[in-house]
Amino acid sequence: PIDGQRLWNTLMAMAEIGPTANGGSCRLALTPEDAAGRRLLLDWCETLGCTWRVDQVGNLFIRRAGKRDDLEPVATGSHLDTQPRGGRFDGILGVLAGLEVFRTLHEAGIVTERPLELVVWTNEEGSRFAPAMVASGTYAGAFTVDETLGRRDADGVTLGEALTACGFAGDLPVGEPRLDGYLELHIEQGPVLEGAREAIGVVTGVQGMRWFDVTFTGRSAHAGPTPMRLRHDALAAAARLIDRLQALALADESGDTKVTCGCLEIAAASRNVIPGEVRLTVDLRHVAEAELDALQARFERELAAAGEAFGVAVSSERLWASPVVAFDAECIAAVESATRAQGVPHRRMMSGAGHDAVYVARVAPTAMIFVPCRDGISHNEAEYATPEHCALGAQVLCDALLARANR
Amino acid sequence: PIDGQRLWNTLMAMAEIGPTANGGSCRLALTPEDAAGRRLLLDWCETLGCTWRVDQVGNLFIRRAGKRDDLEPVATGSHLDTQPRGGRFDGILGVLAGLEVFRTLHEAGIVTERPLELVVWTNEEGSRFAPAMVASGTYAGAFTVDETLGRRDADGVTLGEALTACGFAGDLPVGEPRLDGYLELHIEQGPVLEGAREAIGVVTGVQGMRWFDVTFTGRSAHAGPTPMRLRHDALAAAARLIDRLQALALADESGDTKVTCGCLEIAAASRNVIPGEVRLTVDLRHVAEAELDALQARFERELAAAGEAFGVAVSSERLWASPVVAFDAECIAAVESATRAQGVPHRRMMSGAGHDAVYVARVAPTAMIFVPCRDGISHNEAEYATPEHCALGAQVLCDALLARANR
Ligand SMILES: NC(=O)NCCC(=O)O
Ligand SMILES: NC(=O)NCCC(=O)O
Repeated sequence: PIDGQRLWNTLMAMAEIGPTANGGSCRLALTPEDAAGRRLLLDWCETLGCTWRVDQVGNLFIRRAGKRDDLEPVATGSHLDTQPRGGRFDGILGVLAGLEVFRTLHEAGIVTERPLELVVWTNEEGSRFAPAMVASGTYAGAFTVDETLGRRDADGVTLGEALTACGFAGDLPVGEPRLDGYLELHIEQGPVLEGAREAIGVVTGVQGMRWFDVTFTGRSAHAGPTPMRLRHDALAAAARLIDRLQALALADESGDTKVTCGCLEIAAASRNVIPGEVRLTVDLRHVAEAELDALQARFERELAAAGEAFGVAVSSERLWASPVVAFDAECIAAVESATRAQGVPHRRMMSGAGHDAVYVARVAPTAMIFVPCRDGISHNEAEYATPEHCALGAQVLCDALLARANR
Repeated sequence: PIDGQRLWNTLMAMAEIGPTANGGSCRLALTPEDAAGRRLLLDWCETLGCTWRVDQVGNLFIRRAGKRDDLEPVATGSHLDTQPRGGRFDGILGVLAGLEVFRTLHEAGIVTERPLELVVWTNEEGSRFAPAMVASGTYAGAFTVDETLGRRDADGVTLGEALTACGFAGDLPVGEPRLDGYLELHIEQGPVLEGAREAIGVVTGVQGMRWFDVTFTGRSAHAGPTPMRLRHDALAAAARLIDRLQALALADESGDTKVTCGCLEIAAASRNVIPGEVRLTVDLRHVAEAELDALQARFERELAAAGEAFGVAVSSERLWASPVVAFDAECIAAVESATRAQGVPHRRMMSGAGHDAVYVARVAPTAMIFVPCRDGISHNEAEYATPEHCALGAQVLCDALLARANR
């Protein structure tokens, strides 16, 4: 059995890198903080005799040798980067639970048939560089290496430059090593398990998501003498769109339509200037691909209508589309039977958040394990999962990994 | 008669300090650019034998001696600071037309009875430091010197620190010199004169304005798994408010209600994070004080309703209220008769924008002169007034100033 207290201490030690004012973490991808988190993990793994490699987009592969090192490894992992005011568990739990599995096997002197691989994927959050899961996506062939290295953050720094600056530009060809299977533990980041008093979610797939950059181009003018009816107020048009998108998502009784506008920027903003140009991000999600198509079409109609209503030119660029994913039946079954062995209430469920498992599923049999988080809150400094749930998730991960590595 | 070509050349020379990409100007208050503009003006004035003083909030008083220097001077002026992407005329025309009057009198060897004073008021725009017209307001006793020196820009720099850094911290006590009268030339910044093909606006007063800082405090959470109905989306609430304010202002058939939201900022924004905290600025204006009270009450109701609709806490701070102003009847008449002498179409009108004349009117007889600007556009790099209209405005200013200084 894994050591829940040790896992918890390890989570809290990682949270000391890039701490935020209200008990969260800030380790934006490929910043000095992110690099410090990776080095701390590597220190821990080296004492276990693990070896490691870094691929060309910074994905970190930490290997625990097996009896048959000629076979493809069974992998687990997640990410160590966070949101600007993120929590201590999102991603981190998946990585450190993998470490806890390694430590447990090390102490017990167990060597698996297949090698095990603990993976730290680069820039999962999508906060510094869009889109999310960009490096696991590159690993799986969804993006080219050049495309990914050329992605820019808000300050114009490329992902490639940031990789070099933080010391994690590797030379392992992207796509290596190939994996026999991939299991990822994560907090749910939503309220379903907590609400149902269930301890484990056996994740069967992930909802689809699409990201848009929207631009509203009106005309800046003076707030005082400019008549309301002669204005071309870019912010008024953006507000209309946001309000309509909220209304249509809230109107979906099923609750499956999700719309979020996370960033809004006014060019050369000033209190007494009618905004002339606004940039807005839109995140659309749905568990069914056809409904997501319909949602996108409605978004585009509402955008055109908002522009028309305020005499503002609009344009939108779809910069990411991640289709609905179904995980591998055998991997799901492995997670489910490891969960049953714990005798805890659980359910099969779809994930509302994107995870590296989304892309890895394209090239290796994959499934995920969820544990509840308090009030369903994530991407927030207040994010919290109990030590008991973290330990339970790590135990299910350990058992499912062993079953696959020794099958 | 004044020299229209010389005035135009002077305007274009000033526009070379802090030029923007699309032909506008950026000289935010008390930046190196603003200071360079002031020094250029002082160089020009010194060759005319003028003397100058700077008061404790950086207002610049440039004196042309009269026959009776024991009498209070008649003043003109405006401001040289601009919006972040401002025009070449807003404020600048008023200052440089004053210079053109001095040059014309100098060449003609005319000495007025009373001395003349050309004033450059600090931070009129309110863009770097809120509120607008803060230094003419201090001159007129609406704000204390300490209050004004302590105002902070978005980076936390105080107005006092910025004054010292740019070399315009003076020691003339604020409120000196007292003025016999004040006449200010300005572009209209709206479409009324152009629409009516009129060349001069005889300004009888200024509409009232109120500025608010509004804060929406929701709860940041993950864009994917968080159900729409459990969200506390601060941006959704802000968008609802903006949309409702637009609707109510547009519904006023008289066109007298003006509402503008110029700045909106999301704390720790990220594409896949539901905004937890949003700050919004609101600018409310009306020509009638009672209607402005009613507008503020409606704004407060809409704000409460928007917060309620999205489960978001709201608060608002009124950081400025500039009441409706009526200018001095004698000064208005002086402007009107100087205008009539030109034989051009004109009208009496209220100003939609705030001007330094708003505050100066509290301590000295005051009026203003407007000239049309193209498409009514201001606070925009495309702001433009024809050389003919600039010259005409300067001529009316010259004649009205002379009449008052020699009466
Ligand atoms: N798990 C997680 O927070 N992923 C970020 C990608 C997304 O927006 O769903
Ligand atoms: N004239 C001018 O642009 N003043 C700024 C103050 C205002 O917002 O009206």
